Amino acid sequence: MTESDLPVVEFHPYRWGDPAHPAQLPPAAREALAALGVPAPPPPPVEPARVSLPEPALSREDLEPITAILGPDNVTDDHDARLAHTRGWSTTDLLRIRAGDATDAPDAIALPADHDEVVAVLAACAAADIAVVPYSGGTSVVGGLSPARAGFRGVIALDLRRLDGLESIDRISRTAELQSGMRGPRAEKLLGGNGYTLGHFPQSYEGASIGGYAAARSAGQSSAGYGRFDDMVVGLRLATPRGTIELGTAPRSAAGPDLRQLVLGSEGTLGVITSVTVRIRPIPETRVFEGWRFDDFAAGAAALRQLAQDAPAPTVVRLSDEVETQINLSDPDKMLGGGPGGCLAVIGYEGTGDDVERRRAAATQVLLAAGGRPEGTGPGEAWRTGRYRAPYLRDPLLDAGVLIETLETATFWSRLLDVRSAVTSALTESLGTDGRPVLVLCHISHVYETGASLYFTVACAQTDDPVGQWRGAKRAANAAIRGHGASISHHHGVGRDHRDTYAAEIGPLAAETLRAVKNTLDPKGILNPGVLIPDEDAR
Amino acid sequence: MTESDLPVVEFHPYRWGDPAHPAQLPPAAREALAALGVPAPPPPPVEPARVSLPEPALSREDLEPITAILGPDNVTDDHDARLAHTRGWSTTDLLRIRAGDATDAPDAIALPADHDEVVAVLAACAAADIAVVPYSGGTSVVGGLSPARAGFRGVIALDLRRLDGLESIDRISRTAELQSGMRGPRAEKLLGGNGYTLGHFPQSYEGASIGGYAAARSAGQSSAGYGRFDDMVVGLRLATPRGTIELGTAPRSAAGPDLRQLVLGSEGTLGVITSVTVRIRPIPETRVFEGWRFDDFAAGAAALRQLAQDAPAPTVVRLSDEVETQINLSDPDKMLGGGPGGCLAVIGYEGTGDDVERRRAAATQVLLAAGGRPEGTGPGEAWRTGRYRAPYLRDPLLDAGVLIETLETATFWSRLLDVRSAVTSALTESLGTDGRPVLVLCHISHVYETGASLYFTVACAQTDDPVGQWRGAKRAANAAIRGHGASISHHHGVGRDHRDTYAAEIGPLAAETLRAVKNTLDPKGILNPGVLIPDEDAR
Repeated sequence: MTESDLPVVEFHPYRWGDPAHPAQLPPAAREALAALGVPAPPPPPVEPARVSLPEPALSREDLEPITAILGPDNVTDDHDARLAHTRGWSTTDLLRIRAGDATDAPDAIALPADHDEVVAVLAACAAADIAVVPYSGGTSVVGGLSPARAGFRGVIALDLRRLDGLESIDRISRTAELQSGMRGPRAEKLLGGNGYTLGHFPQSYEGASIGGYAAARSAGQSSAGYGRFDDMVVGLRLATPRGTIELGTAPRSAAGPDLRQLVLGSEGTLGVITSVTVRIRPIPETRVFEGWRFDDFAAGAAALRQLAQDAPAPTVVRLSDEVETQINLSDPDKMLGGGPGGCLAVIGYEGTGDDVERRRAAATQVLLAAGGRPEGTGPGEAWRTGRYRAPYLRDPLLDAGVLIETLETATFWSRLLDVRSAVTSALTESLGTDGRPVLVLCHISHVYETGASLYFTVACAQTDDPVGQWRGAKRAANAAIRGHGASISHHHGVGRDHRDTYAAEIGPLAAETLRAVKNTLDPKGILNPGVLIPDEDAR
Repeated sequence: MTESDLPVVEFHPYRWGDPAHPAQLPPAAREALAALGVPAPPPPPVEPARVSLPEPALSREDLEPITAILGPDNVTDDHDARLAHTRGWSTTDLLRIRAGDATDAPDAIALPADHDEVVAVLAACAAADIAVVPYSGGTSVVGGLSPARAGFRGVIALDLRRLDGLESIDRISRTAELQSGMRGPRAEKLLGGNGYTLGHFPQSYEGASIGGYAAARSAGQSSAGYGRFDDMVVGLRLATPRGTIELGTAPRSAAGPDLRQLVLGSEGTLGVITSVTVRIRPIPETRVFEGWRFDDFAAGAAALRQLAQDAPAPTVVRLSDEVETQINLSDPDKMLGGGPGGCLAVIGYEGTGDDVERRRAAATQVLLAAGGRPEGTGPGEAWRTGRYRAPYLRDPLLDAGVLIETLETATFWSRLLDVRSAVTSALTESLGTDGRPVLVLCHISHVYETGASLYFTVACAQTDDPVGQWRGAKRAANAAIRGHGASISHHHGVGRDHRDTYAAEIGPLAAETLRAVKNTLDPKGILNPGVLIPDEDAR
């Protein structure tokens, strides 16, 4: 199976991934729930059809300027559509919708067909004081789809699914222009038909879209070899309430600031990215994914650092800490099946046969010298084929009464072990105050010459208020991240959940600069209000 | 000789590079001047001491707030200091100063000692309506040091030479914090003493500074291996009239737009970069620079594209076109000595012995398959050791009555040959209207997966108005660049010279966004007025 064989799925409002293939907890996991002190399962989720949505704040008349642009078939306030566009995919988002809380539902959904329609709808919404949530994959895990309503007549979700075309391929320059509503699997299928791949495979690959990758600075699991999504973008088209910005006359330039990098990561607050021109690569001939074992996380991290600094880059580089290695979350079918101890790394190579052999030989030398023990392709292939399944386990775990969520950060190598300790301690202390057992798993999944990402998975028994329980833990983790000078996000983004910590990270003058940019492009502030851009009174 | 052996030189106001080693025209070049139709040499330059500077617009009293911050020893309106800070190093800059025109001289020079002094001086200048030219290497070739005076009481050059410290080295993360007034050779010496190199060697290496590299998005001759300067920066500190912005909590992040990329390339218009944290690398063990010959430029460009797309990156990748190969400008001692025809490429590798061998073997395979003929290390080493000398030839050529200047652009691979033709034609037509012979040389010196730079050197006999002569040619070249969708600069920057073309390149809404950023950080507009930021009435 390759990435282009995966279907584009419509996510179920309560469940991660392809609804046709829900996950079941493996027997070992069920036994382990007792160790977490999980009491009886909580009440089952409210049925989608029975969730009561707020009365739409926008009447048919209010929507008339939008309907005039898109046609009546492309504007809806249907119950199911509104529910499907309510919030994103964080655990707190799921917990709230499972409890029947759909207070953040948009009043209507608008489906533009092209760039010009997006520009026209934004202008119409600005004129009518209607807030707009740019929506494509809907996979935000940081509250990026829950705008602040205050001051607006209502909120629409601007769903870009009709913008899903491959506009052009430039085989000489190896670039392709993709519309932003296209999902990952469709992009791989269309590019694959021409002999190319994007090589961007984030955990949310089955649902996320090209526009979301760009707007939230996504990083895929093959980032060591293919780069982050913001590395791939050479051009983009942005629709704003005041018109269009097109960027990218050359791969790189000294003509002023790189404004592409101002739009990338703007999370729909400065405009709607309607297409991106991305660097593409030939479909790899060969693929080798291997497991390596290290005595402990520090030894494994040092080895990964040497790989990133002194060897030709593998395509995939990741290292699970002792707890994650033990729990084996990367191979859900064997989850909690245990292992021979230490820390497991997965190192993968893709490319031509020669190139893979060359890079693999060099990396193997580095990994052996750093104390790594090769475990062959078994663990690597198990990770590769199972990798999109891990988040599916969240659903049955929530059903069973487990609070489970992830968070992530990035820092320089010299701070990495300290940041990991601090975040682990903060989570354990916050969630374990009442003696509750807390599991904190950590891995490195993206490496750079000067630093790396840290990705945490946290599990414990739910309290009666699991949303409040997690928010407390998140506050503690954020404080630890900030206190150690790390970034509030490596690839999840800011959204509403990280906005205050983000404000502290960039400081008040940079925050004011961002507000000035927003005021220029979106003077009425209709675009994703409450997301990313720090408030004036943020410290 | 390695880069760290080169001295930090004070540029002479009329001459490029180390004044202790002026260039002489080789005999073959003298003969060739006749072919260009060069008449008798123009009058010699006005002696520096005899250039009459405008009366300083700022009195001692006007400067008192700045003197109070820096002390009287660090504020001067001395003739030589003012002259040395007049404009930069473009040919039109030199022609004007040679003709005794120093109308752009700053009224005074201020020499702050640290970041806090820079912030204080900027605030004082904002309060007193004094414009500020951030100045470090002084090597701008795009009018980046000639601010618009209108509306200001006067202009000071803020010379950062006292900020030349290596603040810290992080050996684990392989980063170093360098103050921005430090010149390239000093950076290499200080880092080299610790076993590291920056690997950034632009043509202006002997004079340019760390802050200039950052503010103007410099790209060095080893960019294929070490990256551009904007790739090296992981953090920076910006002093603005409204305070400080510090950026760079992690190598890469999804916490909003990458604001580092908004400051990089801002050319002193948004603030003064006082330090940068850069990625460093171990001093290479081995170095191999080789010559390769191709039948023509198209064949050579196709080979370079394959290197950039399908092989591990060499450290240096460059290709001269037929004319440049013939003239052999890259080896000044043999300039105009001719050669065996075709196009010469220089491909260089630096690193550990193993790494160089691995990359060289892979690249050699690609180059041979693409029709390249190896010429051994002779031409490569000749280029490497002579590479900083080529611009020295401009001085004796100007003395002899030749108009000589360079310009550059970047574009995608699929447009590269068309852009080269269009720019060559535009220059030839503009300068050759009266039947004057025109030489246009071109090379590729920076390659990316999706495109490359094009660098042009132009020579012909001077008219009576060489400044106007060049400006007409530059307008024609800019129109060709813009008309073919290429960027107005790959690494020279925007300055005043490219401001209008830059405005067209980014479009009116992006230009308005930049003005909003500037208005936030520099509400009085004192920072480098007239540079980079498009005017409101720019189309």
